[in-house]
Amino acid sequence: MAAQRRIDLVLDSVKRLLRIGATANLVNLLQKQHPADLAQVFTELPDKEREAVFTLLFERNGRLAMEALTELGPESGAPLLATRPAEEIARLAQDIESDDAAALIDNLPEDLSAAVLELMQPKESKVVENLLEYDERTAGRIMNPNVFALSEDMTVGEAITEIQTSRDVEMVFYLYVVDERHHLVGVVSLRRLLLVSPETPLKRIMTADLISARVDMDQEEVARQVAAYNLLAIPVVDEENKLVGIITVDDVIDVIKDEATEDIYRLAGVAGDERVFTPARESLRKRLPWLGVNLATAFLAASVVGLFTGTIDALPILAVFMPIVAGMGGNAATQTLTVIVRGIALGELTWGNSRKALLKEAVVGIGNGLALGLVAALVAWATRGDPVLGVVLGTAMVINMFVAATAGVLVPLGLRAANIDPALASSVFITTMTDVFGFFSFLGLATIFARYLTRTG
Amino acid sequence: MAAQRRIDLVLDSVKRLLRIGATANLVNLLQKQHPADLAQVFTELPDKEREAVFTLLFERNGRLAMEALTELGPESGAPLLATRPAEEIARLAQDIESDDAAALIDNLPEDLSAAVLELMQPKESKVVENLLEYDERTAGRIMNPNVFALSEDMTVGEAITEIQTSRDVEMVFYLYVVDERHHLVGVVSLRRLLLVSPETPLKRIMTADLISARVDMDQEEVARQVAAYNLLAIPVVDEENKLVGIITVDDVIDVIKDEATEDIYRLAGVAGDERVFTPARESLRKRLPWLGVNLATAFLAASVVGLFTGTIDALPILAVFMPIVAGMGGNAATQTLTVIVRGIALGELTWGNSRKALLKEAVVGIGNGLALGLVAALVAWATRGDPVLGVVLGTAMVINMFVAATAGVLVPLGLRAANIDPALASSVFITTMTDVFGFFSFLGLATIFARYLTRTG
Repeated sequence: MAAQRRIDLVLDSVKRLLRIGATANLVNLLQKQHPADLAQVFTELPDKEREAVFTLLFERNGRLAMEALTELGPESGAPLLATRPAEEIARLAQDIESDDAAALIDNLPEDLSAAVLELMQPKESKVVENLLEYDERTAGRIMNPNVFALSEDMTVGEAITEIQTSRDVEMVFYLYVVDERHHLVGVVSLRRLLLVSPETPLKRIMTADLISARVDMDQEEVARQVAAYNLLAIPVVDEENKLVGIITVDDVIDVIKDEATEDIYRLAGVAGDERVFTPARESLRKRLPWLGVNLATAFLAASVVGLFTGTIDALPILAVFMPIVAGMGGNAATQTLTVIVRGIALGELTWGNSRKALLKEAVVGIGNGLALGLVAALVAWATRGDPVLGVVLGTAMVINMFVAATAGVLVPLGLRAANIDPALASSVFITTMTDVFGFFSFLGLATIFARYLTRTG
Repeated sequence: MAAQRRIDLVLDSVKRLLRIGATANLVNLLQKQHPADLAQVFTELPDKEREAVFTLLFERNGRLAMEALTELGPESGAPLLATRPAEEIARLAQDIESDDAAALIDNLPEDLSAAVLELMQPKESKVVENLLEYDERTAGRIMNPNVFALSEDMTVGEAITEIQTSRDVEMVFYLYVVDERHHLVGVVSLRRLLLVSPETPLKRIMTADLISARVDMDQEEVARQVAAYNLLAIPVVDEENKLVGIITVDDVIDVIKDEATEDIYRLAGVAGDERVFTPARESLRKRLPWLGVNLATAFLAASVVGLFTGTIDALPILAVFMPIVAGMGGNAATQTLTVIVRGIALGELTWGNSRKALLKEAVVGIGNGLALGLVAALVAWATRGDPVLGVVLGTAMVINMFVAATAGVLVPLGLRAANIDPALASSVFITTMTDVFGFFSFLGLATIFARYLTRTG
């Protein structure tokens, strides 16, 4: 919380200095901040102030402004950058890491990004263009091509000299070793270099058995590897096992966060790339299709109720209790679905152990159904004085919670088998099922036992 | 996916070797695996096989078995360990990192963990007991107390000798510098040591401005700092700024994953520590309270319907369309809520910019309401031939989606202000509101316009 308090203080000062037009002081204050803190300040400023502050910083300390944008992320950063002249963007893009530059440029309006690439030094723009050729969300797209490699023929002493003379490269702690054709053949830690004599050949102390990622590997899988093996970085190789880049753990953390956000969002029917301050028009466009699908399924469920208007006509009290059965089924299904979807994402649930999960959830579903069905039955009996209504309500709840549990396991696993993200489509399927089965079981049972039900209301 | 395929192969071999009783071959195969891969194999094996394989490995290569448990995590790992004799657990717990040992021991049955601590070397058990004294989910609880520190009076040459002679300590890449009373005063990177002459005093090349975590800092805040500043590790200090431990980025990744899981779960009313294979009885116990609260709110919503049984009695068709209004409100509210809760968790949404978020969501809510309300109205009109029913349905949907949007912003922000996790309680509040307002607006409007509505069904 201390960090947040500090940022709040900076934020207040920024707003005040901007209001009174003390730009020199303002730039001074900004220059003392860590790029990550600046990114947070940008996030919290209202649109107009954000643009004004960014423009000021960009003009006085372009490099810091670019670094702050990098921390802000390309989706939020690019719109700020888009107001600046292409020449300056091109010049400053060469000061930040190529992968960050590529991400920012990729998010600029198309004509501006073309102009920027045109204006960059050919060597630099080539690197960025190469990165942008890889598919989104792959290792190639998020890697830093500026990777430090040592030749396998070197000695430890030569390697240390090489490190001492190398320009700033992406955090060096693993030193990758390559053969004369740049194939990745091993890894040495910096610490290990200090423990042996300078004449030792690198070949002798390197670890040949190392984990790498292919350029086309899905970024989620890259993150899983780095997390599973507690790596600080993973080397990226092409089809021929040539070393082409490195992905460091800080980028992996961003991937893990983004993928978690995507899972959370998809379960709720929100697009993975939406954020709190995505413009209303865009949010509307992104959310409407999902709600449209839900509306269609709601009409489907409603048509089930429509089958029983005769029964409801005779017993309007059924309309009061009917949503309880559907709603509780939906709630229970959401619980099961969430555990299952997250279990799949974390790699805990696989085909091999899915039967066990199904069995467990079925038991939990029936247990929940019995407990809650009994309570609901007693409440219905007590408030309406009709024990048969209680039995119908309770029985329908047990049935629907069993349906909820089994659907909550089978639907995401089925989608997964069909190579569809289970987080994406499961919940609409499942709430439709619990609505349909909820209404059908309750109104169906009520129709069967109609003559034993008391007409109250 | 390649990694998964490899693990599937190992898994098949393990099952086969276990079935034919080829224990020597089995242990051989296990010993060739990375502890993280063994953890995945344990995850995917059925209960009985898992115990058998773990017991075999534990007896032949206890250290590897412990490392695999560490990767498996304490919740899943401790039950396996609990079947082993306390003497062996105590002996092997000293071979793994103290923080991992503490987490495992903490999850053992109480009498066993007491016995293990009793049987460990006093020095080791003291370290573990110290860790367990910190509150759960704080920096102190997850730190590794075995942190490598250099004295500020050293020269670079002395520091390098110290690194060369130190036993295996938690990944050295940041070298923390302390004064004579062990206060944290600076940091030096290993690479920096290589760039200056051996006589240089550490004091001169260290960075004094460094980010640290207090022992009582919430682990989520620790993770946020490490992620924001792209750190590989963060030093942990006590109240007096004395260096007491280190938290490395691999542990931070676990925290980020766990916190994301907790957010996903809480939004669905599932306890943060539930997993796919939590025993059914325990899952039932954990999920029932949430469903119980939902049942109570469902009766509340039902009682709103109960106010209008007269209208439903006259127009049973209302029972068919009534769930659509409530359900669509719930869906839209879930979208808004999810974006807001995640925005709070990621630090993008604060008090300062909450008005903007409210305004945006209100616009989206009304937009969604108008679009979907119109469609619903047309469908109702077309299928039932009653334009007034369409108008009532559409209007109720606009009202309820506006309620959904504003509640979706205000409820989580309000809970947050009251220091309650917004992910935990928001969804039940909000679905209750959309149910109540959905039924009330639809049935209320229908009651007002009852005489213009056609009695069909």
